[in-house]
Amino acid sequence: MPLDLNSDLGEGFGAWTMGDDAAMLDIVTSANIACGFHAGDPSIMRRTCGLAVEKGVRIGAQVGYRDPAGFGRRAIAMDPGELRDETLYQIGSLDAFARAAGDRVRYVKPHGALYHSAAKDREYADAVIAALVEYDPRLALLGPAGSALEDAAVDFGVRFVGEGFADRAYTPGGMLAPRGVPGAVLPENDAVAQAVSLALTGRVRSVDGGKVKVVAQSICVHGDTPAAVEMVRRIRLSLDDAGVPIESFA
Amino acid sequence: MPLDLNSDLGEGFGAWTMGDDAAMLDIVTSANIACGFHAGDPSIMRRTCGLAVEKGVRIGAQVGYRDPAGFGRRAIAMDPGELRDETLYQIGSLDAFARAAGDRVRYVKPHGALYHSAAKDREYADAVIAALVEYDPRLALLGPAGSALEDAAVDFGVRFVGEGFADRAYTPGGMLAPRGVPGAVLPENDAVAQAVSLALTGRVRSVDGGKVKVVAQSICVHGDTPAAVEMVRRIRLSLDDAGVPIESFA
Amino acid sequence: MPLDLNSDLGEGFGAWTMGDDAAMLDIVTSANIACGFHAGDPSIMRRTCGLAVEKGVRIGAQVGYRDPAGFGRRAIAMDPGELRDETLYQIGSLDAFARAAGDRVRYVKPHGALYHSAAKDREYADAVIAALVEYDPRLALLGPAGSALEDAAVDFGVRFVGEGFADRAYTPGGMLAPRGVPGAVLPENDAVAQAVSLALTGRVRSVDGGKVKVVAQSICVHGDTPAAVEMVRRIRLSLDDAGVPIESFA
Amino acid sequence: MPLDLNSDLGEGFGAWTMGDDAAMLDIVTSANIACGFHAGDPSIMRRTCGLAVEKGVRIGAQVGYRDPAGFGRRAIAMDPGELRDETLYQIGSLDAFARAAGDRVRYVKPHGALYHSAAKDREYADAVIAALVEYDPRLALLGPAGSALEDAAVDFGVRFVGEGFADRAYTPGGMLAPRGVPGAVLPENDAVAQAVSLALTGRVRSVDGGKVKVVAQSICVHGDTPAAVEMVRRIRLSLDDAGVPIESFA
Repeated sequence: MPLDLNSDLGEGFGAWTMGDDAAMLDIVTSANIACGFHAGDPSIMRRTCGLAVEKGVRIGAQVGYRDPAGFGRRAIAMDPGELRDETLYQIGSLDAFARAAGDRVRYVKPHGALYHSAAKDREYADAVIAALVEYDPRLALLGPAGSALEDAAVDFGVRFVGEGFADRAYTPGGMLAPRGVPGAVLPENDAVAQAVSLALTGRVRSVDGGKVKVVAQSICVHGDTPAAVEMVRRIRLSLDDAGVPIESFA
Repeated sequence: MPLDLNSDLGEGFGAWTMGDDAAMLDIVTSANIACGFHAGDPSIMRRTCGLAVEKGVRIGAQVGYRDPAGFGRRAIAMDPGELRDETLYQIGSLDAFARAAGDRVRYVKPHGALYHSAAKDREYADAVIAALVEYDPRLALLGPAGSALEDAAVDFGVRFVGEGFADRAYTPGGMLAPRGVPGAVLPENDAVAQAVSLALTGRVRSVDGGKVKVVAQSICVHGDTPAAVEMVRRIRLSLDDAGVPIESFA
Repeated sequence: MPLDLNSDLGEGFGAWTMGDDAAMLDIVTSANIACGFHAGDPSIMRRTCGLAVEKGVRIGAQVGYRDPAGFGRRAIAMDPGELRDETLYQIGSLDAFARAAGDRVRYVKPHGALYHSAAKDREYADAVIAALVEYDPRLALLGPAGSALEDAAVDFGVRFVGEGFADRAYTPGGMLAPRGVPGAVLPENDAVAQAVSLALTGRVRSVDGGKVKVVAQSICVHGDTPAAVEMVRRIRLSLDDAGVPIESFA
Repeated sequence: MPLDLNSDLGEGFGAWTMGDDAAMLDIVTSANIACGFHAGDPSIMRRTCGLAVEKGVRIGAQVGYRDPAGFGRRAIAMDPGELRDETLYQIGSLDAFARAAGDRVRYVKPHGALYHSAAKDREYADAVIAALVEYDPRLALLGPAGSALEDAAVDFGVRFVGEGFADRAYTPGGMLAPRGVPGAVLPENDAVAQAVSLALTGRVRSVDGGKVKVVAQSICVHGDTPAAVEMVRRIRLSLDDAGVPIESFA
């Protein structure tokens, strides 16, 4: 079964840059492109969509809280109706650039604090999915398997794509271990190994030393630093070596 | 020939309101809905699009500079490429709400300082029109007749709809007289009369006391105050009495 | 013992207005002036400080979350260190206008969701108070009596001024009853009576029909609508009639 | 006569970084710290002020247009009264952090498009200087010699400090040559030589191949890239070698 690699891209803002999008677009198969609420701006959206299409990478709307000062990483206790509206706004704006680049938005992925809120809180999950369905019910939802987002997607009849992480350990229950927990962040060699294990066996490292099953059609990777890009490149090569077909789910 | 009445709507922001949109939507035929850059937010966009569709009013993207603090009324010396991108972003985001309400964006109208910049400066006019064409070349452009915006629309093969003002006097050359000029703003009775004259004869009052030809398929009206709404209601009634068919150009 | 009347003022933004500040400044003795994070902008801050000084009303920094789209009414799960910094920023900026108007900031009052967060959560209360102390330890803190804000103020050696509400019922424990609870919002006549009762007896209406003690040196009043301003005017007159001296605590 | 080295610092925003402030603060004597309008945020302001005080670098308020999306590099046609208010707001907010760090704001320097607008347009220059005087007439104004800013400072009785550029050629009239002009940006060795020439002789390279007099008590340097920081370090060493005393003007 093919595996997708997804990454958060287009997260600069005006004169500020974030990560090496061009390098990442040579490696990943799905680009979660920021839509201007937590990061990104119209010109960055155009450029990133253009590059993605040029390199055959699928475009997803990386929707976030309207909080550039907090980069979308701070939970905002907002009305679900407003969240639905802000999500719809973001999908529509990114799709304009995706279409200008010759493709279109294929999926939605919540970012940062919204990812965590919508994974736990069904009202928030419903708000995100409702916007997706309003825009185009054929879009997929990319998020953590076994979450409220998956439940909501199923209930709305939306295709759900579960993702796993190469460089993070999981709880025995199959959830991401919080960053503060000892051993939660894996060193590079372990992360590369976990990516291959995830692809071939559907099992990842648990913080208690055991293994736990994680259903993931996509692995989320980050390219914030040159070292991170290098690790993602190694992950991709190791998956290729292991014979795992890498292609977008969309 | 039918005449359109257009108005700037959806210009609140969060807890702040602006004008009486519901009252105006009972009178006008085209709603220039703010897209979140100079005013408006996703929930207001949804509400205003919903009301417009309910009342049979056509939806246009009222695109502006990204300057809520200045309400889009301050010229920003920006790169035309960025302006094109910001325009495309705004059209895409509003269209998501127009479609959710069961219709779609039918036209684009620049707001405030961008209206004036794009009317004079061909580079800015081209940027706005280029975004319109990228999004959907069937959209119309609503703006001042005889302007760079009209020239650009013609060159891009875009339908241009010229608009006039009921409550403003014109220069002998057929341009809007600046607000500072004595007699530039007409009292209510004169404004009502000018609307009818514009519709029936294509002529309006000139600041030098004469009359001047203005080609307008639409009259722009404002509903910022209860008195303004009342004047627009009188304009509509007078046009109806004069047998002018009022309908959207779109 | 004299009683203070405080109100949230200067809460417009750019072209958007909120309430009738001039009318309220004729009635209240303390002006909680927004500092540009949840509402307000530099020109509004100048104007409101100028009016306050002209009318002998004391100026307080109404600090809020950086969230104009939500008017500061949505809790943001932010790092306490950032909250301290954002609070210091707001106090400093308002004090520049207070000084330009010939007075200075005398107290700090958190706004909206920050008011509630800092009333409950000691970390947030400490962050607000720490910024106050850093700026000037002689400033007072205006907030709900019996809250984490009062505890923090006491621990930091900061003067705490408790406030009550005329138009709201309280829980039997002396806390504000949530708006959703039946009877939580008092009709006008009851609100006027409660203001007098609060001033003379320190007792207010409890949602269970009884009376509960509330220690308040200030009553918070709102002027969002003409009706609200009218009610505040009646409250002020009733207090005057009851012989309660109305003056600022600062 | 001693020479000052100044640099724009604290220009990150939230998760976004800009330049290597810590490295630059080891080299320069005056820190133009962004105040949150074009760049910077409260926590960055605190950190940068703290570092500056720790390293004995003087703090200046780098005031800019309220335009993070444009990094303050786009002229905004704003009302001079609003500009004065926005300038006062920025000075007040930064001074809160300067004081928390144990020092205070010593001077004001306009940033980006505001630097150019206020250098040419007396109304804008007056607005900036009026805010400075309102806040504290003892603050200095750092800007281009021979500009409207210098005229305004003189008229208001404000100390003006002229600055020059090491890495830029000048017009025969002593103004900065626009970046587009061939030879406008000097290669590193020439920039280092020009800094020394500026300090010792008050003469710089003119784009026509000649030399032109520039009165500068400070040299503006940039640290956006590691190479830029390296060049600034060389400039500082060359000035030290040439026996030029490097110290802040403030």
